Amino acid sequence: MRDVYVVGIGITSFTRLEYPLVEIAAYPGLMALRESGLNKVDHLYVANMGGGRINGQTGLASAVVDHMSLTPAGAETIENGPASGASAIKQGYMAVASGMHDIVMVIGAERMREVNNLEATDFVATLTHPHAEYIYGVTLPAMAGMFARLYMEKYGVTSRHLGMVAVKNHANAMHNFFAHLHQPITLEGILDSPEAATNNPMVADPLRFFDCCPVSDGGACVILATGDVAKKLDKPMIRLAGIGQATDTHTLHERQEPTDLLAVRAAAKKSFAMAGVKPGDVDVAELHDAFTILEIVESEEIGFFKKGEGHIALEKGLTKPDGKLPINTAGGLKARGHPVGATGVAQAHEIVLQLRGEAEKRQVKNARIGFTCNFGGFGNNVVCLTFIKEKEK
Amino acid sequence: MRDVYVVGIGITSFTRLEYPLVEIAAYPGLMALRESGLNKVDHLYVANMGGGRINGQTGLASAVVDHMSLTPAGAETIENGPASGASAIKQGYMAVASGMHDIVMVIGAERMREVNNLEATDFVATLTHPHAEYIYGVTLPAMAGMFARLYMEKYGVTSRHLGMVAVKNHANAMHNFFAHLHQPITLEGILDSPEAATNNPMVADPLRFFDCCPVSDGGACVILATGDVAKKLDKPMIRLAGIGQATDTHTLHERQEPTDLLAVRAAAKKSFAMAGVKPGDVDVAELHDAFTILEIVESEEIGFFKKGEGHIALEKGLTKPDGKLPINTAGGLKARGHPVGATGVAQAHEIVLQLRGEAEKRQVKNARIGFTCNFGGFGNNVVCLTFIKEKEK
Repeated sequence: MRDVYVVGIGITSFTRLEYPLVEIAAYPGLMALRESGLNKVDHLYVANMGGGRINGQTGLASAVVDHMSLTPAGAETIENGPASGASAIKQGYMAVASGMHDIVMVIGAERMREVNNLEATDFVATLTHPHAEYIYGVTLPAMAGMFARLYMEKYGVTSRHLGMVAVKNHANAMHNFFAHLHQPITLEGILDSPEAATNNPMVADPLRFFDCCPVSDGGACVILATGDVAKKLDKPMIRLAGIGQATDTHTLHERQEPTDLLAVRAAAKKSFAMAGVKPGDVDVAELHDAFTILEIVESEEIGFFKKGEGHIALEKGLTKPDGKLPINTAGGLKARGHPVGATGVAQAHEIVLQLRGEAEKRQVKNARIGFTCNFGGFGNNVVCLTFIKEKEK
Repeated sequence: MRDVYVVGIGITSFTRLEYPLVEIAAYPGLMALRESGLNKVDHLYVANMGGGRINGQTGLASAVVDHMSLTPAGAETIENGPASGASAIKQGYMAVASGMHDIVMVIGAERMREVNNLEATDFVATLTHPHAEYIYGVTLPAMAGMFARLYMEKYGVTSRHLGMVAVKNHANAMHNFFAHLHQPITLEGILDSPEAATNNPMVADPLRFFDCCPVSDGGACVILATGDVAKKLDKPMIRLAGIGQATDTHTLHERQEPTDLLAVRAAAKKSFAMAGVKPGDVDVAELHDAFTILEIVESEEIGFFKKGEGHIALEKGLTKPDGKLPINTAGGLKARGHPVGATGVAQAHEIVLQLRGEAEKRQVKNARIGFTCNFGGFGNNVVCLTFIKEKEK
């Protein structure tokens, strides 16, 4: 296999975007092209989940490749629910690694606010099992609520710990211009004060409003290429060194131990093995905190902390920007926002910024190894990526 | 790059299928596993276009991989409109060729008859440009009608030639148990007799009912693997030797010469170059006859016949099963049916049957090189595959 590098990145604000889905996708693509100095690519992948359903548009990648004047490059839309972004990056990796293509653009884009929030929840619920879950009214927040309750009972996690994830990630997002929520919050405001019940109502017990990510529009892009292409550019060499993916049962109730996220565990293990590094080597990580509980549990399953001790690491501040392992420096899904198809690419975007040393006020010092965990369904299809900054040219 | 072989195939009937989309996808997958003697795969791709929109199901590949008990193998859904199938095969190829995975299952599946025929036409029209075509009521049959009219004026193709494609492909489908339409037709019945106007009403002038493919449910599968895996199986070695893909303008009216299908031309050229063969070397081909005119035009753009002479080759019977270059021996989209996401995989399925010598009554003698053309949108994203049977082990 040939080595694969990130040679360009781009992103939109994650917020309500009034312009069409094709443009949400194209904008970060053009931004990445401009940054890289490239004017063509050999192939395009667009990660997207709801184009057909909520935007009335299929064949999205073909539309985007033409919109950017990148024809006759081939193009496909990649869908793996909320993990579509990292899945598309995996396809891009293989296209370059195999020798099929030299320069591959990977865009993630979603226009979720075409629908209202109630419809958005129903749209995301199409990920659940159609005959064993969906028809009974299960939604992702409901699943996450049940999961959180079990986890709290078993491992001593409290609502306060969940709140700490939200407070940290909202604070991180204050330094990210492209984040959806620029709203500093405190444990007092969302849990302790008399106004907390109003500020932070229950959504799916024990998860409250500030435990859930917002519904966002947005797009992000990474351009992947061979070492020969990367060497010519005036940027640090960021290698996509490890990719791990694993699936688990579709239904949550079929899992032997529902508080274990086995697909996260397996995907992370594969990603580290491929990259030849260990969890302890990671300098900065982007985890999939669609619900606050997930950041805690993923930080354990990946191997950053022991099982059942993620909330203790959080309490100690280890995952803050100045901690031992900063997590979700850009605000996470919680505060950067979660346009589902875009999220995995946005995670990679943040890691590349960090490893390049371009993350400005949220820069993690001397970051050399970065990691992303993109979580599809309710953990039934997970993709983990490991990025390594190579020594100076 | 490592060589990649087809080590197992499976297919459902293309017809109205009452069972759920996940099972339409899983059935040919299990059939292919049984045929190959394998009991696990490293990765799964599912080609599908309408899961989110017409079946209310996203994350389809994750559902299918669990339904077949193939977890923890990774999985993605690949969407490239009606060319989703060949696009998914391309991903499978790169996964094996790159060394990322050794055995990759590629399924194409669609459950289109969840909606009625009118809604199916609207669903397919979501492929058109949302702001320059769709909102004005353009549908794929309408585009194909305008395209056919131009082509007929320019190259002397007649409604009789279009009818000949339908008659040939309906005849071919009579020997394909899995075809949607087992209905022999004649030029007299659909064009010349007094009943013809009733039998074969106008759909989009000059295209009549029998110029358009039916709306079908169905699934198909190919399993791709390394030479080491293929050698162990008791089947001829069928190598996926060439892959070519190209895109063109999204809107038809922006093409300099709207009767040219430049993406077909470019994709075929790349596929042949990669395989190291010429159009004249091909023994059997599957073309994308969603509308009869397309089989004629593609046969020219691919290089089987000169531009403007496809209809003459057809007239001479060169594309019949006993002709020089049999096209659509399984009935084509016209008569096998066109469950959009499944079609590209079904085309590969037929070529593998032919090259193995397992095509029974429709077997093309001594077929060694096979070719497929899978046509996305209205020719804005085309994927062509070349398969070669290797010498006996």
